[in-house]
Amino acid sequence: MNRLSKDPVALFEAARDGHRLALARLMSIIERGAKEARTLGAHTFSQVGRAHTVGMTGAPGSGKSTLTAALAAVVRAIDERMAILAIDPSSPFTGGAILGDRVRMQDHVTDEGIYIRSMATRGHLGGLSLATPQAVRVLDALGWPWILVETVGVGQIEVDIARAADTTVVVVNPGWGDAVQANKAGLMEIADIFVINKSDRKGADDTRRDIQQMLELSSLGDWEPPIVMTVGTEGEGAQELWATIGEHRSHLEQSGELSLRRHDRIKAELLKILTQSFEARAQTVLQGPRRVELQEKLDRGEIDPYAAADLLLEMDTSD
Amino acid sequence: MNRLSKDPVALFEAARDGHRLALARLMSIIERGAKEARTLGAHTFSQVGRAHTVGMTGAPGSGKSTLTAALAAVVRAIDERMAILAIDPSSPFTGGAILGDRVRMQDHVTDEGIYIRSMATRGHLGGLSLATPQAVRVLDALGWPWILVETVGVGQIEVDIARAADTTVVVVNPGWGDAVQANKAGLMEIADIFVINKSDRKGADDTRRDIQQMLELSSLGDWEPPIVMTVGTEGEGAQELWATIGEHRSHLEQSGELSLRRHDRIKAELLKILTQSFEARAQTVLQGPRRVELQEKLDRGEIDPYAAADLLLEMDTSD
Repeated sequence: MNRLSKDPVALFEAARDGHRLALARLMSIIERGAKEARTLGAHTFSQVGRAHTVGMTGAPGSGKSTLTAALAAVVRAIDERMAILAIDPSSPFTGGAILGDRVRMQDHVTDEGIYIRSMATRGHLGGLSLATPQAVRVLDALGWPWILVETVGVGQIEVDIARAADTTVVVVNPGWGDAVQANKAGLMEIADIFVINKSDRKGADDTRRDIQQMLELSSLGDWEPPIVMTVGTEGEGAQELWATIGEHRSHLEQSGELSLRRHDRIKAELLKILTQSFEARAQTVLQGPRRVELQEKLDRGEIDPYAAADLLLEMDTSD
Repeated sequence: MNRLSKDPVALFEAARDGHRLALARLMSIIERGAKEARTLGAHTFSQVGRAHTVGMTGAPGSGKSTLTAALAAVVRAIDERMAILAIDPSSPFTGGAILGDRVRMQDHVTDEGIYIRSMATRGHLGGLSLATPQAVRVLDALGWPWILVETVGVGQIEVDIARAADTTVVVVNPGWGDAVQANKAGLMEIADIFVINKSDRKGADDTRRDIQQMLELSSLGDWEPPIVMTVGTEGEGAQELWATIGEHRSHLEQSGELSLRRHDRIKAELLKILTQSFEARAQTVLQGPRRVELQEKLDRGEIDPYAAADLLLEMDTSD
């Protein structure tokens, strides 16, 4: 094939043959989230389920990208293959920062066994929370055995995206940061593995004790989240992290929790799709011509917004 | 009235007569967001529009509560009246922190001219983004001329709540913090006034220059957000902050922007109400008995979630 087709299924077949540009196009299709993304989703859905996904989250500056690069080196050393999605919901604002981090990943860009892609939304109505699982499925269907999803920041969207993985890694630094502090309990809840990165810095042991104590207070299941100490810039601890991810994978498979998690995940995604479709409908309802009058009444304080919503919903049904 | 009625309208009348317990009950009604909240909303909506609302946001630990207390002292010194809503979306996790801060507000609790209330959701389906405007309207209808809405943290929900005010104050500290860093651009966009609190600390001038530079790069309207230096614990700068809020109010009123903002705000609220009502419908659609089969098909990879959503939506219509 000299010229790349625009057909998503043809692109998928080309990507399966190792065509990197075709894969890049597929990811762009998902970012746009239009009809082609639906076609792609329907085509690939039955072919997924073999990949193990790892979510990595942590405050900006905690060194997730460096750690990811170190992990990629470990993966390559044992001749495994890994796809990396860097998810940046705030991309219009902080696009620059992530590019800087990506530079450190350059070691891997010409490597056939590693695929790296930054993802932002370019129109996908459900945003990155809906685009990411689609991207993961395409990579899975293409035969990538490991998919690492790295999110920037610890806001609700980022945390939700990272937790929608088989294994969720939470990266903190000695002393934690303001951003983490604000959402400590939330992070405790989702972590399958804790990483204290930059662990050569002062306070690493205190942070470890801190996490340990919080874990003791939490009601845990069969799996007690291990704490791995790393120095991403030196690759230190990356091997141990990789081994720990493997242990968690075995635990999930043997306990039967893997299928439970995947069931819950697809259910949550379905709810999000439904909500988003209703949300789009709410927008339509708000834009109809007969609604201008209602808005004016609202502005004049003649009706309250809840009564206005009821009237709009009635109109929607009777239209 | 010896015993408080449970009727929202009767409670509203009692609260208008200065009955503080009645007011507390009204706020609880809003937090629960049930039918009584609708009744209350319908009853009060036509009586609102006189209060000026001030939103205050900033990272945890930036000293918002101390600053609010200092502002309350200024307000009382000139015999004005102010209601303060402390909004804590993460309350189930960090409930303790805000109580600690509230202790500093004790100076004002027996003061007839100040009303302080911490708000969390206790069932309101739209969460605090929908409960807060309702609470503000009730306070407005009760005749509170100034309503300050303080949010904890700089996550998306907090920022959205704080920006839904007439005047939005963004509180930072010398050196900024991780949490602010992650959302700097977002905060720049919403700030009508910047406060550098704890400005007696090292780096206050650098932070001022930093904000100034970012403001120069932004495309601003007629109002250039002033930067006020404060030391909340000493009450330093509180007077200037109060004056600056007054200037912004005059600007909004004279430029006609006040009614534009309020129009946009009520429109955004209406959209949120519609979305939330559709979201509730999505949940219902997901719970129907005929949906189990579909979920099983999903789990087996026989259909993709988008196709499942389409089928569910069709069922919803034909039911």
